[in-house]
Amino acid sequence: MTLSSLFPQYTAIRNRTKDLVEPLLDEDCCVQSMPETSPVKWHLGHVTWFFENFVLRHYEKPFKTFHNAFDTIFSSYNPSGQPHPNPKRGLFTRPSLPVTRDYWRNVNERMDRLLNQSAEDEMLRMLFVLGMHHEQQHQELILTDIKHLFSQSPLNPCYNSPQALQSDRAGTSPLEWHTFDGGLVEAGYQGEGFSYDNESPRHKQHLQPYQLASRLITNGEYLQFMEAGGYDEPSVWLVEGWDWIKASGCSHPLYWRRNDGGWEEFTLSGPMPMNPDLPAIHMSLYEADAFARWSGARLPTEFEWENAASRQEIKGCFADNNRFHPSPASAGDTGKNGKLAQLYGDAWEWTRSSYSPYPGYNQAKPNDSEPLSRVWNEAVGEYNSRSMVNQYVLRGGSCIIPKERIRSSFRNFLPASTCWQFSAIRLARDVT
Amino acid sequence: MTLSSLFPQYTAIRNRTKDLVEPLLDEDCCVQSMPETSPVKWHLGHVTWFFENFVLRHYEKPFKTFHNAFDTIFSSYNPSGQPHPNPKRGLFTRPSLPVTRDYWRNVNERMDRLLNQSAEDEMLRMLFVLGMHHEQQHQELILTDIKHLFSQSPLNPCYNSPQALQSDRAGTSPLEWHTFDGGLVEAGYQGEGFSYDNESPRHKQHLQPYQLASRLITNGEYLQFMEAGGYDEPSVWLVEGWDWIKASGCSHPLYWRRNDGGWEEFTLSGPMPMNPDLPAIHMSLYEADAFARWSGARLPTEFEWENAASRQEIKGCFADNNRFHPSPASAGDTGKNGKLAQLYGDAWEWTRSSYSPYPGYNQAKPNDSEPLSRVWNEAVGEYNSRSMVNQYVLRGGSCIIPKERIRSSFRNFLPASTCWQFSAIRLARDVT
Amino acid sequence: MTLSSLFPQYTAIRNRTKDLVEPLLDEDCCVQSMPETSPVKWHLGHVTWFFENFVLRHYEKPFKTFHNAFDTIFSSYNPSGQPHPNPKRGLFTRPSLPVTRDYWRNVNERMDRLLNQSAEDEMLRMLFVLGMHHEQQHQELILTDIKHLFSQSPLNPCYNSPQALQSDRAGTSPLEWHTFDGGLVEAGYQGEGFSYDNESPRHKQHLQPYQLASRLITNGEYLQFMEAGGYDEPSVWLVEGWDWIKASGCSHPLYWRRNDGGWEEFTLSGPMPMNPDLPAIHMSLYEADAFARWSGARLPTEFEWENAASRQEIKGCFADNNRFHPSPASAGDTGKNGKLAQLYGDAWEWTRSSYSPYPGYNQAKPNDSEPLSRVWNEAVGEYNSRSMVNQYVLRGGSCIIPKERIRSSFRNFLPASTCWQFSAIRLARDVT
Amino acid sequence: MTLSSLFPQYTAIRNRTKDLVEPLLDEDCCVQSMPETSPVKWHLGHVTWFFENFVLRHYEKPFKTFHNAFDTIFSSYNPSGQPHPNPKRGLFTRPSLPVTRDYWRNVNERMDRLLNQSAEDEMLRMLFVLGMHHEQQHQELILTDIKHLFSQSPLNPCYNSPQALQSDRAGTSPLEWHTFDGGLVEAGYQGEGFSYDNESPRHKQHLQPYQLASRLITNGEYLQFMEAGGYDEPSVWLVEGWDWIKASGCSHPLYWRRNDGGWEEFTLSGPMPMNPDLPAIHMSLYEADAFARWSGARLPTEFEWENAASRQEIKGCFADNNRFHPSPASAGDTGKNGKLAQLYGDAWEWTRSSYSPYPGYNQAKPNDSEPLSRVWNEAVGEYNSRSMVNQYVLRGGSCIIPKERIRSSFRNFLPASTCWQFSAIRLARDVT
Repeated sequence: MTLSSLFPQYTAIRNRTKDLVEPLLDEDCCVQSMPETSPVKWHLGHVTWFFENFVLRHYEKPFKTFHNAFDTIFSSYNPSGQPHPNPKRGLFTRPSLPVTRDYWRNVNERMDRLLNQSAEDEMLRMLFVLGMHHEQQHQELILTDIKHLFSQSPLNPCYNSPQALQSDRAGTSPLEWHTFDGGLVEAGYQGEGFSYDNESPRHKQHLQPYQLASRLITNGEYLQFMEAGGYDEPSVWLVEGWDWIKASGCSHPLYWRRNDGGWEEFTLSGPMPMNPDLPAIHMSLYEADAFARWSGARLPTEFEWENAASRQEIKGCFADNNRFHPSPASAGDTGKNGKLAQLYGDAWEWTRSSYSPYPGYNQAKPNDSEPLSRVWNEAVGEYNSRSMVNQYVLRGGSCIIPKERIRSSFRNFLPASTCWQFSAIRLARDVT
Repeated sequence: MTLSSLFPQYTAIRNRTKDLVEPLLDEDCCVQSMPETSPVKWHLGHVTWFFENFVLRHYEKPFKTFHNAFDTIFSSYNPSGQPHPNPKRGLFTRPSLPVTRDYWRNVNERMDRLLNQSAEDEMLRMLFVLGMHHEQQHQELILTDIKHLFSQSPLNPCYNSPQALQSDRAGTSPLEWHTFDGGLVEAGYQGEGFSYDNESPRHKQHLQPYQLASRLITNGEYLQFMEAGGYDEPSVWLVEGWDWIKASGCSHPLYWRRNDGGWEEFTLSGPMPMNPDLPAIHMSLYEADAFARWSGARLPTEFEWENAASRQEIKGCFADNNRFHPSPASAGDTGKNGKLAQLYGDAWEWTRSSYSPYPGYNQAKPNDSEPLSRVWNEAVGEYNSRSMVNQYVLRGGSCIIPKERIRSSFRNFLPASTCWQFSAIRLARDVT
Repeated sequence: MTLSSLFPQYTAIRNRTKDLVEPLLDEDCCVQSMPETSPVKWHLGHVTWFFENFVLRHYEKPFKTFHNAFDTIFSSYNPSGQPHPNPKRGLFTRPSLPVTRDYWRNVNERMDRLLNQSAEDEMLRMLFVLGMHHEQQHQELILTDIKHLFSQSPLNPCYNSPQALQSDRAGTSPLEWHTFDGGLVEAGYQGEGFSYDNESPRHKQHLQPYQLASRLITNGEYLQFMEAGGYDEPSVWLVEGWDWIKASGCSHPLYWRRNDGGWEEFTLSGPMPMNPDLPAIHMSLYEADAFARWSGARLPTEFEWENAASRQEIKGCFADNNRFHPSPASAGDTGKNGKLAQLYGDAWEWTRSSYSPYPGYNQAKPNDSEPLSRVWNEAVGEYNSRSMVNQYVLRGGSCIIPKERIRSSFRNFLPASTCWQFSAIRLARDVT
Repeated sequence: MTLSSLFPQYTAIRNRTKDLVEPLLDEDCCVQSMPETSPVKWHLGHVTWFFENFVLRHYEKPFKTFHNAFDTIFSSYNPSGQPHPNPKRGLFTRPSLPVTRDYWRNVNERMDRLLNQSAEDEMLRMLFVLGMHHEQQHQELILTDIKHLFSQSPLNPCYNSPQALQSDRAGTSPLEWHTFDGGLVEAGYQGEGFSYDNESPRHKQHLQPYQLASRLITNGEYLQFMEAGGYDEPSVWLVEGWDWIKASGCSHPLYWRRNDGGWEEFTLSGPMPMNPDLPAIHMSLYEADAFARWSGARLPTEFEWENAASRQEIKGCFADNNRFHPSPASAGDTGKNGKLAQLYGDAWEWTRSSYSPYPGYNQAKPNDSEPLSRVWNEAVGEYNSRSMVNQYVLRGGSCIIPKERIRSSFRNFLPASTCWQFSAIRLARDVT
């Protein structure tokens, strides 16, 4: 496969980013609604900067930066070299969105020229592919971040058409338990395609027999937990979770709102009546764990999840359908053949596994002494082992990522208090 | 004077607001750079809402609001009825700037219609005049707030043309001391024009003989304080000021920056080499007090200032010249006739007087039992006695307010830590 | 008057400090219950250190410190030379209370020897007298601080005998208004005795005619304010006061507690049923101002207070009676002759005057170039002008200070949020 | 084994607690030096309350509490039922230490009477044994907490005799690597004795081949990391660890202090010259991980540790020798037979394993519907699964616990930022 043969996929991904920004005002793209999120314009500039900084800077001859200051503005690294989100990103009203679009276009043209002229080069290919995956991750963040911003507005803006959600049928499949034998299994990525470092090496894990719920917990089921006083009963919460709900005043899922005696849910299609058949989303790990404990179950480990998921075809509600909200589990999704509904897509599923390195994991890749290896290490830096503390693994993807991003070995990871992600609950239990 | 005769002034003020917004991008107008500031778009909507809410709502027949939600978005009162700045104003990306301009235009048309049709009505006139003064105050805030926002940008945007400051001549008049006899004097507003409640009633104050410096402290003089270790010497600081510089890390005026061994100053015309002859501005009261103590002087009381200022013509560097930065004091400004340079305009002058009510002050105005009095009290609420604690009085106006806003009795007031205002130092001392 | 003639008074004050510590366990004396307070043991060591450091260090020949580290432990200055309370004072379990008592005794002996041997020396006399006043101030803090500590205990310890308060008769005198003419008056200390710098120089103030309430506001009156929803009505609060009650959750005076449908008040004699006839104490300025606004009155200025107080004999409920709680105002205390009840003693009275320097005030005393003047300036440092920002003046003394400490010109000063002091409300109003 | 046959061990443990308090002043026992620690007096009262509340309350006939309020004061549960440390414990100066000792004595007598009179009862035996283990855990905390308190004092108090450390010989064994095969192994408690819930059930884990360092990292080795700029190099730190050292200002181990160009270490025997051969202790997980990353190694998992430890005799430097500080590893401790030095005792060893439930773990024990089961669940509550988030496992015990408390399956757990525990670094690495 030649380098230029990757270009159609590259173009499709780059255009998708541009399309996601299309429905938004310049002002919508500029504001940062909390420290954990970034302005949409920053995401657009940052994914563009990634190609300029990690590919063009090293391969374009002669390299000429689009604008010197963009390295400061669109880098994800703060001055101390730390890859954490910068709460001041929302102060950068300049460059304007139109200028940021010019930057996007300029880098696309230079990348096109480069890839058509370059001979095959393993490192170039790796950086190029990494940039595409990096960009898809930021597409997901564009949607989570705009959802959070719009949820703050008294005008209740819609990012997506309300029609996208209005035809939802009623009803969901009953919750059933599927049994898995466990034993000595393998986990981690295998294959020839792209995967992140954190999915390797493939290795053995020993599992006790276990059961997984046939689908995600629904809004209706979560409402029962709430109505039974779940948020007032310390014994079902992790101690740290209880402190968190007391300190934050949290008493319902992040985007639920009371509405004339009932509940509505803010979605990317605006506020909607809460549909009891849809999965309960925007769960923190604390809430997911409390619900599980309250219902006499527990969360799965990431290896229990992967062992089940690796047998099943990747299929579900992904961003490809432009719905940007989970779908109800239909009766047909589960059945005699042990298929688990909503396993892929819909919403990320919290596991009880802390984010930690696999046995034999080594963050450095190719050969550290070569200059380009340093580029690689810097480019891949956001995914390395330095994040591996006090975060928990989520699996399975969501309705705002494209299907092609997910695999059974993919590990997402977030702090336990995170609820602005599309995160949901799949129950597990022991076989006794 | 008929009501409609006020309309030209009204139109001029409203257009000035629109003109101040003109040089800005939609994105510039949307962002709030710190809790104490507001987005420019919010200021534009808020001054418009003031006329809609306090005038049209009560006099327009029938009253039809432009948009229901604007009452929430553009009011300065938070849900508990408190008139403090709302740190969430920067999250309102909607309405867009164009829609906010439509609102501005719509209210202007309705006000025009109303004023042409109304018979003379004292309360209507008072609210109308109050609205104009209120708007001019927000014009000042538009400039302070955009200066703060632009100062955060790595792109160093210019709000105003750099030419506005480039022709500054060198040199300043020497600092001299002018003596005032004191004795039993009068303070507070007298006359027929507009004034705020806090300037009344006119009353007697007894002053010891005192001296005032002939001009404001310059950047050059303030730099001497810095180079003498002023920020490292606790004995010249108020205890609370010392805690403040330690906690904030402050070691120079807010908009100064180191630059190749020297200093530059960020202005509304962008970064400029620090001009030692211009007044040192953006001083907190703590810094002003420390400088005064270090130089063996003190800050004046507001009554010492007013006693001197009431004898002098109102003249100086105001926003009317569109310079938006103080000017140097020329030798001609002071002289044998005891004139004080930079007394009006240029920059607000800190006094050592805490903001407190004058003897006999009563916040309620006309007759509290009438419904329109309640409107008045609400409209004028931001200026009432409930702010009169832990703030300090500044006098004399600045280069970003129009000359017509100032009078010798005008009282500005800010917390001691404020440095985003155009605030400066005039020294005083006792006659011994 | 020879130096040694001051010794009886010195001995009485030093013994009083020791006596105040007597009822306490070693453990009671060691703990600091909040950053604004200090452990009793620290007060005992600190007043002793004051004499060792400011008197003995300069006059004892040869000087030999009791313990090197006590300079660190018992100084009120933190390493940066700042005289603010040290939140780590409560961590010093050593020296033990018995050792601190040895220190007290050792310094007393050395002071005795010094004063009997010294010739008259103005500076020595000044430092000696200052040390006695300093010690009496810390006697007051011993009582405020132990009250705060004991109020936290589930065991409700009594510092003083409950009998001290049990015989309180019911009833209080009616609230009346006494009128004062104002005009050009004098304020500030005059005389030959001791006074703090902040009471000087005596100077002129012009006052409008005004009225003062004949006594302090009672618990019963304050309860009416509470029951009328005072803590829920933003319009009666200073904006900053409203923010303070919302942030702190304050909804009643600091030491009130609900008790079977009623209220009790924690006192130095333990919890007592709330007596409606006693003055409401432990008021913040915010609460005092809100009560005054709610009742259509205001707080007096410090000069209105002083003008009234300077005509009246110093008499009232002071620490000399070992009651350590205010007394009700008896009908006999006020009357035809315009006497104000509870003017001295009982509780400090908030004024609306910010703490600021008098005209002509100069912090340095004798001659700054002499070495001993530096000692003086350091010793007197806690009272100088560097505290004169964002604090408000209280007048009149309280039931936990000795009568000899107070005079009509005495200025106490505290931040507006302070409520652990014995502070109360005397209303004022304009004459119209 | 009859119940009363446990009494000698009970008596020994109870007396040990009393003995640990012996060297302390009443004041030392009263103060809480940070929110994570408790006053020694609280520990003494709390372990006593444990027997009164969980044993006597249910078995003593008739039950008569020593003091009603002690349930509030000495419970580890705050009003909301949460078992976290109470930052207000240090405010309870009452009951005094002598009264708390009376409480200790009273409960001992009542326990003696009860155990001599009771028939065998499984739940009573379980609660009794749990109480003994609970008490030994608080003995450890008495020592960690008093060390933290004393480290704050300018007087540098010694808890233990300085002689205890003065004879330490120089030299340590070289760091070697011992290889373990891994494979499918078993982990978790097996046997008939006492163990905590979190050590069960015993289950299978699959391990890759791995190596463990032959001893703990020494002060000397850690100093090399510091001198190589370890605290200034973000790339060796977990992102969260870097944020932690920047926010806390940490740049060396908690109890190290600079001293004339060198370092000293504060110990329970007071400040000592830093001995390069002793293990580096009071490490946070962040520091342990950074050291490991810097040296090209990693921390072990808890299962790698347990697999190695389960083959080795329990032997080492424990509190039984009253040294209260780790010992150097002697050459004889490691050798041909693959023995790991300092594996038990000396200091807890951080693992990279987050604290999480073993497969099949179920917090409830005997039968939940019986009343006494609820008592058990409450008593054992501090050790249950509700703590299992954002904490990391430490293994092996320390020099301040008795040898009898430790086993190869014992799991200690702490937040990653904890450094007031006796925690150290044992390196691991993969076999490649």
